[in-house]
Amino acid sequence: MHALDCFFNPQSIAFIGASREPGKVGYVVLQNFIRNRFKGKLYPVNPNAQTIQSLQSYPSVKKAPGEVDLAIITVPGPAVPQVVSECVAKKVKGVCIISAGFSEVGNEVLTKQLQREMEKGLKQGTRFIGPNCLGVLDTQTKVDMLFLPQERLGRPGKGVVSFISQSGALGSAILDWDALKGYGINKFVSYGNAMDIDEADLLEYLGEDPGTKAIVLYLEGAKQGRKFFETAKKVSAKKPIIAIKGGVTEQGGHAVTSHTGSLAGAKEVYEAAFRQANIVYAHSMEEVFAFARTFTTEPVPKGKRVQVITNGGGYGVLATDALIQNGLELAQLNPKTLKELQQGMPSHVVLKNPLDLTGDADNMRFKRALEMVLQDANVDMVLLIMLFQVPTLNELAVRMTSTALRERKKPVIVLSVGGKYAESHKMALEQSSITTFSSPSESASSLRALYEYYARRGKA
Amino acid sequence: MHALDCFFNPQSIAFIGASREPGKVGYVVLQNFIRNRFKGKLYPVNPNAQTIQSLQSYPSVKKAPGEVDLAIITVPGPAVPQVVSECVAKKVKGVCIISAGFSEVGNEVLTKQLQREMEKGLKQGTRFIGPNCLGVLDTQTKVDMLFLPQERLGRPGKGVVSFISQSGALGSAILDWDALKGYGINKFVSYGNAMDIDEADLLEYLGEDPGTKAIVLYLEGAKQGRKFFETAKKVSAKKPIIAIKGGVTEQGGHAVTSHTGSLAGAKEVYEAAFRQANIVYAHSMEEVFAFARTFTTEPVPKGKRVQVITNGGGYGVLATDALIQNGLELAQLNPKTLKELQQGMPSHVVLKNPLDLTGDADNMRFKRALEMVLQDANVDMVLLIMLFQVPTLNELAVRMTSTALRERKKPVIVLSVGGKYAESHKMALEQSSITTFSSPSESASSLRALYEYYARRGKA
Repeated sequence: MHALDCFFNPQSIAFIGASREPGKVGYVVLQNFIRNRFKGKLYPVNPNAQTIQSLQSYPSVKKAPGEVDLAIITVPGPAVPQVVSECVAKKVKGVCIISAGFSEVGNEVLTKQLQREMEKGLKQGTRFIGPNCLGVLDTQTKVDMLFLPQERLGRPGKGVVSFISQSGALGSAILDWDALKGYGINKFVSYGNAMDIDEADLLEYLGEDPGTKAIVLYLEGAKQGRKFFETAKKVSAKKPIIAIKGGVTEQGGHAVTSHTGSLAGAKEVYEAAFRQANIVYAHSMEEVFAFARTFTTEPVPKGKRVQVITNGGGYGVLATDALIQNGLELAQLNPKTLKELQQGMPSHVVLKNPLDLTGDADNMRFKRALEMVLQDANVDMVLLIMLFQVPTLNELAVRMTSTALRERKKPVIVLSVGGKYAESHKMALEQSSITTFSSPSESASSLRALYEYYARRGKA
Repeated sequence: MHALDCFFNPQSIAFIGASREPGKVGYVVLQNFIRNRFKGKLYPVNPNAQTIQSLQSYPSVKKAPGEVDLAIITVPGPAVPQVVSECVAKKVKGVCIISAGFSEVGNEVLTKQLQREMEKGLKQGTRFIGPNCLGVLDTQTKVDMLFLPQERLGRPGKGVVSFISQSGALGSAILDWDALKGYGINKFVSYGNAMDIDEADLLEYLGEDPGTKAIVLYLEGAKQGRKFFETAKKVSAKKPIIAIKGGVTEQGGHAVTSHTGSLAGAKEVYEAAFRQANIVYAHSMEEVFAFARTFTTEPVPKGKRVQVITNGGGYGVLATDALIQNGLELAQLNPKTLKELQQGMPSHVVLKNPLDLTGDADNMRFKRALEMVLQDANVDMVLLIMLFQVPTLNELAVRMTSTALRERKKPVIVLSVGGKYAESHKMALEQSSITTFSSPSESASSLRALYEYYARRGKA
């Protein structure tokens, strides 16, 4: 058992500050667990109520029958130190303090008080997330501490990416978006002021977590720089960490100080440290998502030589530019492949890189080209541009592509742009575990990130 | 009357190569006009048919009764020179040659033949688009030459942006996407091999076009560099030209040569020329769309000082980084505004830039902050971050924002991320002519592009 398991897979939970008033934080959090038919025991704690949401309520966590793995605290800030001391007395394993009003608003007195109570707990092994956070969402165990109601913040389905966010609002907006897109998530943690558990602890935990294939991190400033980078180095040797850093400009750094009170640090320092720890650096939120999808779907590339296959010359050109600007190389097909292509294709097909199948390419021409390119040892990765506006391509192309890529040994990204018809085909490809994008730049930067990460691990 | 009007607003059209076989190019093109209840006269031309799609057919364009403003040619390549000579004899004003098989496939003999016939026409004022193109789509006059059926390629509704594309496939994918998103378009031209009319002619025409507020251009290589840049300079003094350039790397340049046979030219040369001609340079397709929306919705900024207003600290940080990285400045609110804000806001609101209204900000707090910031002379542009996951914000915030921005004198971009609930609010804002984005980077680069363009025109 890992010390942090109590936050993600508790058998019994106390809700300190549980409320009967719909809409209140203490109401929503408890409601989530009831709605989700959570398997463990639920103990609402509220001295002013006998029952809350049809569950028996307790005046203090100390009165809860049996052990308490996790306490979720939603009482007002000034009441937090007292209830924390009760959790410590009860030997609760994990405490998540959602309540705000501490150092983030400059209340150092209250922060000190809380710290004293926490220290007693830490000595006996009690661990803390928060304060001033959203806490944990785990789509496997159905732990859901998010106090934002599901009508406002959609919950993503099950997935293989886990997400650590230093910002609660940013984290929740992303979860909501992720739910809409249907990408799914494994675990989400908003850890707030990080008075005990910080980004390094969470990285370490998710590094061991078999349900997490890739970790996404929104970071403003690491609490303890050395600990963070040492941990990241170890974890990134096992699975990718994709990070976006807030406060990379001087002015952004000032905003960070106003926001989480962290020190943002100079951009160059972080970039170098990210590289050394083999953290995949995303320069925008768009890249975060693109990288997460690529890393969890595509196999390890053997090198950086990319073959472009297209039925639209213009997109072939833009893709070439984007690949080169990302430091990748255009593959040179070996003469045997070229000869086979020449024999199997009409004469107006452009047998270069991009391999331009031209606007009249049909399902079969795409299938043949893809198969021949995939078996060419000079090709490490493939960027397949399929524009579905032409009448010669249809759902058969999707099926053939899915079959050809089923057990692919090389990363293949499908780039496609369009309306309803094209989007439905892209979705079908996504459902066959194929990475699809709408833009040459995000396709190219994703292949670059994939290559660089595995090259640094000595695999590409 | 402008010489190119015949392509966009013809009174009579000959369809040379009109077909009775559904799916054929010559079928789809004629069908478009019938479906659209096009107001002008339609003359199918086909020597092997009496009627086509219930219209009387003519054996040659020469037999069409009365004048012919426009001929659309879809016969196979080798038959093109002959039918062009007939168009010339008929004194057709404009000829659009959709047929392919010329210099783009290396058929120089056929190209020469066509050129000879075209030259006879040019002498008498007949103008030509193509060959090897998709031709024209005009949402106002309902001219629709696109041979890709509407089930495959959705047609956008009416809009104020016009789009010139050197690549047909790229152009059609974008149209299809645009139709899905509901952004609308004014005119679209795919001009193919540009044996007569080239990007410069089209720029000049759209520069004069009252329906076109902004021009988007996909360019691989200008046919005549000097003519192009001279024209662009004149046009950009009246309305923005947003261009994406294919072939900015050496390898991309090779791909261009295989594709349209153009010379791509060095990146630095183009970038400098774009700057000089005040063409707004988009580095990705995403930027193309973001810029087009911003330029057609937002007023002229007076300077580059941006105030960020947010209810999420993390997004405030990322937005600040993105603005600074785009060369913009953070506005410094004047003391009077700060005092008013202080009086009107709870004490935990962060009165800086970003102005962090914090997670409990409600509709009214947003409204007040926006109004105070808009009237501050130290603020040139506003980036308003609204995260709708919190229960304190609802549709009233959308209505208040729309009202506050109705006759705005300063550009304001709303940044919002999320799921269904958030998206519905963003859509409502868009419908009130407010630019909304999902990402800090596209918000910032759009404000930068807007500022730079007007600064070069001496307005910002």
